[in-house]
Amino acid sequence: MSHKFKGIKLDEVRTITCIGAGPIGAGWAAWFLAKGYRVNAYLHDLAEEPSLHSLIETAWVSLESLGLAEGATRNNLTCTNDLAEAVANADFVQECAPENMELKQALYARLGELVPDNVVIASSTSGLPMTEIQADCPNPWRTVVGHPFNPPYLLPLVEVVGGADTDPEAVRWVVDFYRHIGKAPLALNREIPGFIATRLQEAMWREVLHMLDNDEATVEQIDFAIVNGPGPRWAMMGPCLTYHLGGGEGGMAYCLDQFGPALKLPWTRLEAPELAEHLRERLIEGADRVAGNRDYTQLNRERDLGLVAIAKALKEIGG
Amino acid sequence: MSHKFKGIKLDEVRTITCIGAGPIGAGWAAWFLAKGYRVNAYLHDLAEEPSLHSLIETAWVSLESLGLAEGATRNNLTCTNDLAEAVANADFVQECAPENMELKQALYARLGELVPDNVVIASSTSGLPMTEIQADCPNPWRTVVGHPFNPPYLLPLVEVVGGADTDPEAVRWVVDFYRHIGKAPLALNREIPGFIATRLQEAMWREVLHMLDNDEATVEQIDFAIVNGPGPRWAMMGPCLTYHLGGGEGGMAYCLDQFGPALKLPWTRLEAPELAEHLRERLIEGADRVAGNRDYTQLNRERDLGLVAIAKALKEIGG
Repeated sequence: MSHKFKGIKLDEVRTITCIGAGPIGAGWAAWFLAKGYRVNAYLHDLAEEPSLHSLIETAWVSLESLGLAEGATRNNLTCTNDLAEAVANADFVQECAPENMELKQALYARLGELVPDNVVIASSTSGLPMTEIQADCPNPWRTVVGHPFNPPYLLPLVEVVGGADTDPEAVRWVVDFYRHIGKAPLALNREIPGFIATRLQEAMWREVLHMLDNDEATVEQIDFAIVNGPGPRWAMMGPCLTYHLGGGEGGMAYCLDQFGPALKLPWTRLEAPELAEHLRERLIEGADRVAGNRDYTQLNRERDLGLVAIAKALKEIGG
Repeated sequence: MSHKFKGIKLDEVRTITCIGAGPIGAGWAAWFLAKGYRVNAYLHDLAEEPSLHSLIETAWVSLESLGLAEGATRNNLTCTNDLAEAVANADFVQECAPENMELKQALYARLGELVPDNVVIASSTSGLPMTEIQADCPNPWRTVVGHPFNPPYLLPLVEVVGGADTDPEAVRWVVDFYRHIGKAPLALNREIPGFIATRLQEAMWREVLHMLDNDEATVEQIDFAIVNGPGPRWAMMGPCLTYHLGGGEGGMAYCLDQFGPALKLPWTRLEAPELAEHLRERLIEGADRVAGNRDYTQLNRERDLGLVAIAKALKEIGG
C-alpha cells in the first residue's frame, strides 16, 4: 500500500485521549499522566468517574514510587462523555473500549470522522484483529493494535500490530512513541489471533482448565506450583532462554537432545510439532541471539542474581 | 496398603546423600550444605568432581547472600564413586541420576539393598512415574518423587508424589522434611505425567514450538513478550489468582463471563475443555480460597507492591 500516514514528532505530543475507564483505560491514563501528558478520558457514562479516579489513585502510589516525569500531575486529567470533546486536540488516542467487535467497529467509524488522520489510534484489544476493527474506519491507515498487560502502569509490554489497511509507518511511529514514554513495545511480524504473550499465557491457562476438570490438581496447587517454581524465572528470562540455560554448557542444543523425546510424552493435552531440523536450528540460533555475548557462567550468574534480588524484594514486602 | 514406613525425627537428620553431580544434584547438595547438613555426593565418575565443586561454588554466592544456617560449611561435603560408601550413614537420599528409566530402576534395586528401609529415597525426576522407578526396589514404600526446579538452591518448589507401592507415611515425612529445610513442597493428589508445574510449563513450551515452526514469532519476540508481560506477575501470583484479579471487583466469576467465550477462539493449538458448571465453580471457589480474606483492593495493592519491588530489584542489578 502507499504511505498515507505522516506522524507528528514524538516530542510534540502533548495531549492523549484514553477511551474507556475500566482497569486498562485507567491504567493507561495513569501511565500517561505520570509521564507528564495531559489526558482526556472518554467515559461511556459519567457515573464511572469515581471508579476511574480511584483506579488512578491506586496506580499513582506505584508510579510515584518509580518516579514521575517533571511536571506530571493528576490535575492534567479531564473527563467527558462527549467523544468529540474527548478527542479534540488529541495527539494520540489509546482505545480501551469493551472487547466487542461491533462496538469497536462503530467506534472506529466515528473516530475516523473526529480524529485528524495523522493521529494514531491504538487499540488495547487483547486479541481482536485490527483488520476487522478498522473495517468501517474512513482512514484506517493510522489504526493499530497497542495491547498492554495488566496493570498497564507497571508491566512494560505493549504488543503492536497493524491491520490489512494499516500503513507500516503508523506501526513504526507508535513503536517509537511507546518506547519514548518508557514502555516495551513488541512489533509482531503479522496479525495472529491472541498475539504472542496472550497466546502463550492462554496455552498454559487451557492446560490449567484441563487439570482442574480432571481432578489432577486444585487451584491452590496450580498457583503454588507456578509461584514457587517457574514463575520467578519468567520475571527475567523467557521460556527459550530458560531452556537454553537448562542445557548447561551445551545450551539449547543439549537441552533439545535431552528433553526432545519428552515432547512425545503426554505432558499436557497440546501435541508438540515435529522437532525437525529447521525448527531445531531456529531454536538454537534464536537462543544464541538472545544470549548474545553472555556465556553459560554469565547467564547463570545473572539468573541467580535476579532470583536472589526478587526473593529478597518480595520477602521485604512480606510477599 | 499397610504402613511399613516409620521415619526418623526430622531434627535427627544429620547426613544426606546426593546421587548425581549435574546441575540438579549439585544444586541440591549446595542447599543441604547451606542448611548445615553433612552431604555425601555420589559421582558416577570422579572426573566430575571439579565440575561439582564449581557448581556448588556458584550456588554458594547466592546462598551466603540469603543467609547460611549456623555451622554450615562446604567442608561438610564428601565425594565418592562407591555407592555403598555414599549412602552409609545417610538419613535421607536425594537421587538426581539421568532421566533414564532402566538406569533408575537398577539404581533403586541396589539402593533397596544398601539403604535402611526407614530412610526416604527421593527422586528428582522431572516426569518419570515413581510406580515404574520403584518396580525393582525390594522396599519401595519409602521411595518418592521429590522434583525440584532449577536452580534447586533458589527456587523453593519441590513436587512430591509416591508410586503405587509408596507408603503415604513416607510422602508425609518428606513433605515435612522439605518444609523443615526451607523448601516449598507440593504434594500431588496422584501420579500424573509431568506432575503439575512441568506440565503447565510444557503446555506453554509446546505453543512456543508451534509459533516458531509457523513463523508467527521469533525466539527473541517470545522471550521479550514473557519477561515484559505476564512473567513478573507469575513471580508472585499464579495463573488463577492473576485471572481472579483480572476480573476486577467481580473476580474469577466476572473474568470467566467476560473471557469464557474466547476459549472457543483459536488462541493456541490447545483446545479448552467445556466451561461447564462444575469447572466454573471449581475455579471460582478455588480462586476465593487462594485470595483468602484479601479483597480486590488488597490483592491489587499486593500485586502492585510486588511488581514495583521486582522492577526496582532487577533494575538495581542491571537486569
